[in-house]
Amino acid sequence: MVNPLEFGETVLLIEPQKNRTYMIDLLEGSKHHTHQGSIEHSDIEGREEGEEVKSNTGCSFLVFRPRVTDRMLKVRRKTQIVYPKDAGWLIMALDLFPGARIIEMGIGSGAFTILMAQLVGEEGKIFSFDRREDFMDNALTNISRSGYENRVKAEILNAGEPFPVDNVDAVFLDLPNPWAAIPAAYSALAPGRPLALIVPNAEQLKEAVKCLNDNGFSAAESIELLERKMLVRQKEGVRPLERMVGFTGYLVTARKMKENK
Amino acid sequence: MVNPLEFGETVLLIEPQKNRTYMIDLLEGSKHHTHQGSIEHSDIEGREEGEEVKSNTGCSFLVFRPRVTDRMLKVRRKTQIVYPKDAGWLIMALDLFPGARIIEMGIGSGAFTILMAQLVGEEGKIFSFDRREDFMDNALTNISRSGYENRVKAEILNAGEPFPVDNVDAVFLDLPNPWAAIPAAYSALAPGRPLALIVPNAEQLKEAVKCLNDNGFSAAESIELLERKMLVRQKEGVRPLERMVGFTGYLVTARKMKENK
Amino acid sequence: MVNPLEFGETVLLIEPQKNRTYMIDLLEGSKHHTHQGSIEHSDIEGREEGEEVKSNTGCSFLVFRPRVTDRMLKVRRKTQIVYPKDAGWLIMALDLFPGARIIEMGIGSGAFTILMAQLVGEEGKIFSFDRREDFMDNALTNISRSGYENRVKAEILNAGEPFPVDNVDAVFLDLPNPWAAIPAAYSALAPGRPLALIVPNAEQLKEAVKCLNDNGFSAAESIELLERKMLVRQKEGVRPLERMVGFTGYLVTARKMKENK
Amino acid sequence: MVNPLEFGETVLLIEPQKNRTYMIDLLEGSKHHTHQGSIEHSDIEGREEGEEVKSNTGCSFLVFRPRVTDRMLKVRRKTQIVYPKDAGWLIMALDLFPGARIIEMGIGSGAFTILMAQLVGEEGKIFSFDRREDFMDNALTNISRSGYENRVKAEILNAGEPFPVDNVDAVFLDLPNPWAAIPAAYSALAPGRPLALIVPNAEQLKEAVKCLNDNGFSAAESIELLERKMLVRQKEGVRPLERMVGFTGYLVTARKMKENK
Repeated sequence: MVNPLEFGETVLLIEPQKNRTYMIDLLEGSKHHTHQGSIEHSDIEGREEGEEVKSNTGCSFLVFRPRVTDRMLKVRRKTQIVYPKDAGWLIMALDLFPGARIIEMGIGSGAFTILMAQLVGEEGKIFSFDRREDFMDNALTNISRSGYENRVKAEILNAGEPFPVDNVDAVFLDLPNPWAAIPAAYSALAPGRPLALIVPNAEQLKEAVKCLNDNGFSAAESIELLERKMLVRQKEGVRPLERMVGFTGYLVTARKMKENK
Repeated sequence: MVNPLEFGETVLLIEPQKNRTYMIDLLEGSKHHTHQGSIEHSDIEGREEGEEVKSNTGCSFLVFRPRVTDRMLKVRRKTQIVYPKDAGWLIMALDLFPGARIIEMGIGSGAFTILMAQLVGEEGKIFSFDRREDFMDNALTNISRSGYENRVKAEILNAGEPFPVDNVDAVFLDLPNPWAAIPAAYSALAPGRPLALIVPNAEQLKEAVKCLNDNGFSAAESIELLERKMLVRQKEGVRPLERMVGFTGYLVTARKMKENK
Repeated sequence: MVNPLEFGETVLLIEPQKNRTYMIDLLEGSKHHTHQGSIEHSDIEGREEGEEVKSNTGCSFLVFRPRVTDRMLKVRRKTQIVYPKDAGWLIMALDLFPGARIIEMGIGSGAFTILMAQLVGEEGKIFSFDRREDFMDNALTNISRSGYENRVKAEILNAGEPFPVDNVDAVFLDLPNPWAAIPAAYSALAPGRPLALIVPNAEQLKEAVKCLNDNGFSAAESIELLERKMLVRQKEGVRPLERMVGFTGYLVTARKMKENK
Repeated sequence: MVNPLEFGETVLLIEPQKNRTYMIDLLEGSKHHTHQGSIEHSDIEGREEGEEVKSNTGCSFLVFRPRVTDRMLKVRRKTQIVYPKDAGWLIMALDLFPGARIIEMGIGSGAFTILMAQLVGEEGKIFSFDRREDFMDNALTNISRSGYENRVKAEILNAGEPFPVDNVDAVFLDLPNPWAAIPAAYSALAPGRPLALIVPNAEQLKEAVKCLNDNGFSAAESIELLERKMLVRQKEGVRPLERMVGFTGYLVTARKMKENK
């Protein structure tokens, strides 16, 4: 059942001592340089996941295929990304399933797109929009690297324009002005299906919730998540880590109601 | 594209004023009683998701198909469940995908099983174990109600016994003594694949991380998540809610390394 | 050095099993009724702090003189009070010291007044203002019970009116519209001295900080505090408590600059 | 009522643009060098608190007398200090008042000693102990700079040795092994009076609470505090800051019971 790493794959190198990770594309004849020495790609090819390789200076690295979380964190960033802690909550809010058809407005750097593409599978589709061509190009490069490019259909679109797809299973908005896209999201959603959005500021949260309530959405729920890393040391003891990300964004979810006419 | 609610389905009723929800099985001739009056199931049948129905006392309810989060929160509980905030993080840690084969030890009330079953899809499989027959029976009833029973293979097993399946894509442990199952989890996992676990106490966290490090796992990461609801009122203002769940559990994830022999 | 409890004193009864506390005024001939039976005040009189007394049903209580935190939490409330976690931070922000002269606008129920009165001592003075006579009366009754009534000078005043005292060492504002009182606070403060305020909503926070910046204050700092109780059990283990207060208010502090003329 | 800054005083310089602060001793003929240019001390002398001075490169600074929080944060550190957020809570737990006599075991760098010295006033006394002469020397230098040296009586002592003072109003322990000092703290405390302690790890928290319960203390309460800074921008909006201190320590308080003999 062993399935060795091959040239052409994306590989995660973990330097366990320093807790540093590198995501590289395995290429015949290449070499990866780190602060702890260099590693020949040919030394990685043929290895099993979880195996140890050594740099030319004798430093140990573990080789893995990247998990979706690794792929998200390692995208080339032209924008703020949706962080894994928030992404997990959004997956739940959007009620994803294999085969789902999802609209994403604000492709950003594509990190969350990669996650959704993994979860909707080959039968599903992510319709991703952004108004900025440079963001779109970068995101699509990131998505291609994950191998999910066939699951994503990307298009330039301004917030407020109607989405060129309908009856979708969920809509995700990552925009400075999500309210601009809420009426179009309503039209594109299948009955009763969820929308979710993320915004950084309290004022945006307020405006977005107002707009949801005014445009046929119900059961809006707004939260934020604090992730706290624990330091687990067998001798010195267990405690939360001193450093922590204090804030990433406010997350909102709501469901499409039937219009009263 | 409208797909009306039918008898035999599970339906979520939301009472928007009180923020109360009910999950009911729609049955011909039945009636649902609430503090805001009763509703004939035949009044719900044929409705579109997101439509309004009224109780006999004139109180408004919205009808929806339950999202996976609703199904998780509405399981009949014989145990503590994995809450959505933690479930989302665990989905990321376990790197789920359609078609994945997952071991779950500690089926509990089946809430997290339902989520995993939704996400691995029809091609995937959740191998769920528990040592307690009463928990297993209750969990399987909950899972059946979600319609995912064919995606779950459940079996009575004690922590520490080998799992009767191997080369799985991920292992999730929800046990008072997860360390007892860690060596068997190692054997059952495909190379490099992740394990995740949840425990409530600092002492268990310490013991579990030690056991992971001693049994061929690498890159252990331990966290907890705080979810904070926001109160978004257009007139009075925006602020976090006064009440909050302070703690549910410590979450740990790690990846299988290749054994050095 | 033992200093027994006397009639006329305020006494704290702690029921350790249930973690319930009662604050009572010790009166000859009185009896205190609880869910765990009744206690004669004469059974408490003459006891040492920390001593055990029993109710008529055999239930144990510990008797103490109240700490300032107990007095704050046990005021008769006609308003939201400043909670101890926030009060401690505010004490630091206000740079209190024995002998200090402090303005408080929004006496509320007097809880924070009691704390400040304890800390400024007999040489200090708290000038407390409120526009509502009913709040003021209730607060003064609470303050009298603490024995600090001579340290507090209370007066009815509307936010925006000049304070009838100047060169004070600090100003504390607990008002729905603290900005209304900020210019008067500027005039009343000694050079360089601090102001602090508490508000519940993000909009108020924004308006208050703007007003501070526009009215001669510098170095504004805004925070909130989350207090998390720990459950420390020798056998079952250590973990945060499941329930937690999620939010009380935003705290702001700033210092008076010299006006540029 | 203006009270200008004089040579010999300690002065706080705030660089508002960069949010940098400096605490300097004002000396005739001296000059203070910063990344934004240098400032002659004679340019500061005679100023009012809150006044602006300019460096030789034209950069603006505000001059203030330090608040007690500034003094705490600016001590020369040979140890971890008690941070203001925790210090405020501890002040409440210790029920400080002018004239109080307090034991502190683990003087550390003297930051918390300075705060307690300010609050107990000229009539009070802080009895500070530490086993390390180097810590003690550094702490006393820090305390002298605050001008509170007459309020502190410091002595070398090992945890576990009896305290050479009794009937004190409160005891504060900042030690890796606070349990070693708990029996001596019991003996030194006046009846019913509080003890508080701070420890970084869950294991220490557990051991400390056990020791309190076994040695005549009641009503132990254990918490931790999360301080979250808010970013308040008039144009861009209000939100929590992205960076945050995730953890400093667990705080415990308890009260002395009367021994049952």
